[in-house]
Amino acid sequence: PPRSTLFPYTTLFRSIIEADKLKEIFRQTLITQSRRAENSAEHSWHFALMIIVLAEHSNHQPLDVLRVLKMVLIHDLVEIDAGDTFAYDTKNMADQHEREARAATRIFGLLPPDQTAEFRALWDEFEEKKTPEAKFAAACDRFHPMLLNCLTDGYAWQKHGVTQDRVLARNAHVADGSRTIWEYAVRMINEAVAKGNLAPKAST
Amino acid sequence: PPRSTLFPYTTLFRSIIEADKLKEIFRQTLITQSRRAENSAEHSWHFALMIIVLAEHSNHQPLDVLRVLKMVLIHDLVEIDAGDTFAYDTKNMADQHEREARAATRIFGLLPPDQTAEFRALWDEFEEKKTPEAKFAAACDRFHPMLLNCLTDGYAWQKHGVTQDRVLARNAHVADGSRTIWEYAVRMINEAVAKGNLAPKAST
Repeated sequence: PPRSTLFPYTTLFRSIIEADKLKEIFRQTLITQSRRAENSAEHSWHFALMIIVLAEHSNHQPLDVLRVLKMVLIHDLVEIDAGDTFAYDTKNMADQHEREARAATRIFGLLPPDQTAEFRALWDEFEEKKTPEAKFAAACDRFHPMLLNCLTDGYAWQKHGVTQDRVLARNAHVADGSRTIWEYAVRMINEAVAKGNLAPKAST
Repeated sequence: PPRSTLFPYTTLFRSIIEADKLKEIFRQTLITQSRRAENSAEHSWHFALMIIVLAEHSNHQPLDVLRVLKMVLIHDLVEIDAGDTFAYDTKNMADQHEREARAATRIFGLLPPDQTAEFRALWDEFEEKKTPEAKFAAACDRFHPMLLNCLTDGYAWQKHGVTQDRVLARNAHVADGSRTIWEYAVRMINEAVAKGNLAPKAST
């Protein structure tokens, strides 16, 4: 049954209102046209769109696409408190999960209790990468910035001195979710090296 | 079965690559923190998040939430060609559907033929507002900018001289998707008038 409607809109919609802040969290990746930094809200939408376009390429079929989409739509909300952690920033990755788990407690806690539990379970599932749905979500989450990097001449890779060997190692788990997407990713990464947009190995 | 993997990634992912352009389409609404204009990609994400948080408030139950999310995630892609049309811009609203339908043909046409047909059917369903899923999507699509306007002191309403009577008339169909959300919207609109953020009627 619908919840009581006796409280003000700032209570019923407080999680929606808080979520607006994700539009202010910027990532290392550039968008393709104006080449400004992408924010995490846009990333979440583009990532969700990839899910519906590419779901047939999940290793595991049939896939519960609704559960994947829910995971994808909420997965970055924790960045409102924890910020975006670049995929090759090993220093900040050390305590990333701890920082994000604290954020999950606060932010999902803005929802009614049954939804707090549902959203936290979805976020935990996404983080653990064990179910077919979480593996496919993780595959697209990693593929997305690689695609944008390739389309913006390797900007974020070059800025941070990321090399092909690290890109391959960091993203190999894409194959756990989709062998097809990983096959394409490898081809795309090799093409970026051939074009001079990604260095093959650290020079030191 | 998965499609052939013999073509380049720019073919398999061309609809995903094209979609990136939606991050460059700006709306009249401001986001709450930095108060810059919101773009249509961010709107689409926030809108999809609203769907999963508020689905229980749909008049019609049970709701096919997956179909609603698919509609929501693709509904604004047409703006890549047609631009965003402000909800109170009666001049540009006259040929809005025609412009957007042309865009739908081109943009959904970038997908494989079965997905072109699926996405076009979802977009048509959203536009027609006849099914419970489309009615609930339309309710949240209209509620979202009203919420942001209320949280940014009525900026977009004031900029365009939009008054309470027009807001109520233009958005009354929210009640077809969710009586609860409309009840909140009316309360929120009245509050905006009381605060001086929305004029009750045109002064002429």
